[in-house]
Amino acid sequence: MDTSRTSSQISFNGRGIPLNRAPHNVFVKPAFGHCQKAWTNYFELPVEYTVEVHSDILNPANDTLATRYLPDRECRRRFIVVDEKVQQLYGHEILQYFKAHRVETHIVVIPGGEENKVFEAVDKVLSELCKYGLHRREPILAIGGGVVLDIVGFAASCYRRGVPYIRVPTTLLAIVDASVGVKTGVDYVSSELGRLKNRMGAFYAPCAAFLDKRFVATQDRRNIINGLGEIMKLALVCSSELFALLEQYGQQLIIEGFQGRLSDIADRVIELSVQFMLEELGPNLWEYKLERSTDFGHTFSKIIEMEAEPPLLHGEAVNIDGFFCVVLSYKRKLISSEERDRIFYTMKKLGLPTIDALCVPQVLWRGLEDALEHRNGKQRLPLLNGIGSCIFVNDVSYSELEECVKELNQLHNLK
Amino acid sequence: MDTSRTSSQISFNGRGIPLNRAPHNVFVKPAFGHCQKAWTNYFELPVEYTVEVHSDILNPANDTLATRYLPDRECRRRFIVVDEKVQQLYGHEILQYFKAHRVETHIVVIPGGEENKVFEAVDKVLSELCKYGLHRREPILAIGGGVVLDIVGFAASCYRRGVPYIRVPTTLLAIVDASVGVKTGVDYVSSELGRLKNRMGAFYAPCAAFLDKRFVATQDRRNIINGLGEIMKLALVCSSELFALLEQYGQQLIIEGFQGRLSDIADRVIELSVQFMLEELGPNLWEYKLERSTDFGHTFSKIIEMEAEPPLLHGEAVNIDGFFCVVLSYKRKLISSEERDRIFYTMKKLGLPTIDALCVPQVLWRGLEDALEHRNGKQRLPLLNGIGSCIFVNDVSYSELEECVKELNQLHNLK
Repeated sequence: MDTSRTSSQISFNGRGIPLNRAPHNVFVKPAFGHCQKAWTNYFELPVEYTVEVHSDILNPANDTLATRYLPDRECRRRFIVVDEKVQQLYGHEILQYFKAHRVETHIVVIPGGEENKVFEAVDKVLSELCKYGLHRREPILAIGGGVVLDIVGFAASCYRRGVPYIRVPTTLLAIVDASVGVKTGVDYVSSELGRLKNRMGAFYAPCAAFLDKRFVATQDRRNIINGLGEIMKLALVCSSELFALLEQYGQQLIIEGFQGRLSDIADRVIELSVQFMLEELGPNLWEYKLERSTDFGHTFSKIIEMEAEPPLLHGEAVNIDGFFCVVLSYKRKLISSEERDRIFYTMKKLGLPTIDALCVPQVLWRGLEDALEHRNGKQRLPLLNGIGSCIFVNDVSYSELEECVKELNQLHNLK
Repeated sequence: MDTSRTSSQISFNGRGIPLNRAPHNVFVKPAFGHCQKAWTNYFELPVEYTVEVHSDILNPANDTLATRYLPDRECRRRFIVVDEKVQQLYGHEILQYFKAHRVETHIVVIPGGEENKVFEAVDKVLSELCKYGLHRREPILAIGGGVVLDIVGFAASCYRRGVPYIRVPTTLLAIVDASVGVKTGVDYVSSELGRLKNRMGAFYAPCAAFLDKRFVATQDRRNIINGLGEIMKLALVCSSELFALLEQYGQQLIIEGFQGRLSDIADRVIELSVQFMLEELGPNLWEYKLERSTDFGHTFSKIIEMEAEPPLLHGEAVNIDGFFCVVLSYKRKLISSEERDRIFYTMKKLGLPTIDALCVPQVLWRGLEDALEHRNGKQRLPLLNGIGSCIFVNDVSYSELEECVKELNQLHNLK
């Protein structure tokens, strides 16, 4: 160790004296108090991933899934995880695709659906990975809805402390939501505590997400609307253009399943959604900043999604939360009654639910308290500031929730 | 979206056109082939942690554990995980320490020992974290050997997709090894596949590691020697100074338990080990570079550690692997017979094992094949190039292993 440096060097980047063999990373700091010796290790981990909109990702003429991100040219195999629905609807096509490219496949089928987003599914993938002997630089290919993408992403983050993975979302919700960021995870379930949403997981970027809206064609109406719940959220906090598209074409988009006559509009809706999601998440991938506009609709919805009877889908619960926050924004004079009504009628037109039996002050307050824990002690509740823009508040009281619930019920002609 | 930019901007950092709202992160790339639209999200995740050598970390006069890395000033509680041995030897002192600082403690005790480095232990910590309601910015404090540090690190990486954690190692091995890097993890155990070492985990930096050699005083001789196995490895690949210290003082250091008369030498041995570890790991924390000098002794040792009868400790298995690689280096004329013998006799003097019944070509070859998977298809085997320096080779053959086993047996006067 070189101890000949002068004290003027101690302030190198404020981190201490750099070490000879790791001059950009490791710094020795002066001793202090009970501390005889201190080093700081500083590292900037580069993370890069691509999100691409493709047409016909399963057409053998599109060689993306067969050739991209292979560890080397000799690797002619893919470890693939799909959900049961994808296996049923596209299993044959997937096999034909890789056969055409002479790539050997190992396909693991796991059940989709929120109730299966638990560690057991991650464990199943890990066990298959161990048997397969996946190399450290060989990507896993996940084809499915958000649940499969989250499970595979978490398994990829754990296996050998991290292997690459590729996301191919097959639902509208996953195309605009689970595919775009770096979140992975499952619910934590225990007999004592019940089910805690997304309590276990990792921020772990895929190498790529390949989006193909063709998969939306095989979704039923309710699941398409589910995806529109997240798109509506993005429109409200980020983009009046996107909101206007939903207002004008949303109903028709559902009928056409994002294909056919309105294909160009569908492309634009997906493009805007993905782009705004990336713009919002991009600079804050690891959520060092806890004020996140994409958290709009994600404060009260966790409990609503978990406890609603009959059950709600994620995008539905998000929309119920979102509309409650629209009412909150209106009561705080952040949006006009005209804006509130425009939002209300657009949601109605799209078939998005705007109220639930759980919209009572006690339940909503519990949701806010849970959020405190996740947002490090502050509410950081996103509210609208006009359509397409948002602000954060920390001072919502129980009585304000009571007022808003009353307003919400009146809007729905209840009580 | 701004589509008015000129094509000259397409090459911004080679990543495409930056987006207005995330100009340093998200870039739009031109369409190509079947791809209609592509974005790249680029992010540099800053990772910083400190490693500090402390005297008397459990002395109430040293306020480190009571005050550092609290999420805010009002937080007067610590979630602490210890192993059974630490609880037995230091449990009372830990309680007294936090009582003196008026910090409320929640102590979780888990079993130490390699056989307990499994997911069940991570799950126990996660379940306690859920019950406790740890905040997202509130660090977990882990006090124990490498197994506890690895388990807590992995739990911290998963809980709410990552919470901070602090490492306080209580064994010599953990002080110089598990504490310094960013690796966490557990073995994967299944009835079908048996036990796969460190197959599950994460690269996840602690906020700090606080080292206090006082804990070594309560370790038995064999466990101190276990730690010296990793220190010997570092000496061989990185530092002739460290090797000379082991040669001259190693025996006495074991007797004194790294305290007493030789306290200054003990400090220097730990300081050099930690520093070399940091220098080696620092620029390559996420192991993008798979040629790692700290992998010396970690190629054949995984199988040896797993299958040896009677069982071996990690540092013992590492030393057996390390000495086999010394013989390999000698046979390749990378070190002289004098250097080989100097190493051999120093290891002997320290009580480090240099051979095992598993040192047969078939077993060693399996180890090399496993390493291929982990090192992405190449051996990348570190060998010595003189004492204190190493090189990597990719061409070790089965017959070379046979030759070296013969030589190894001769050195031990076997056959």
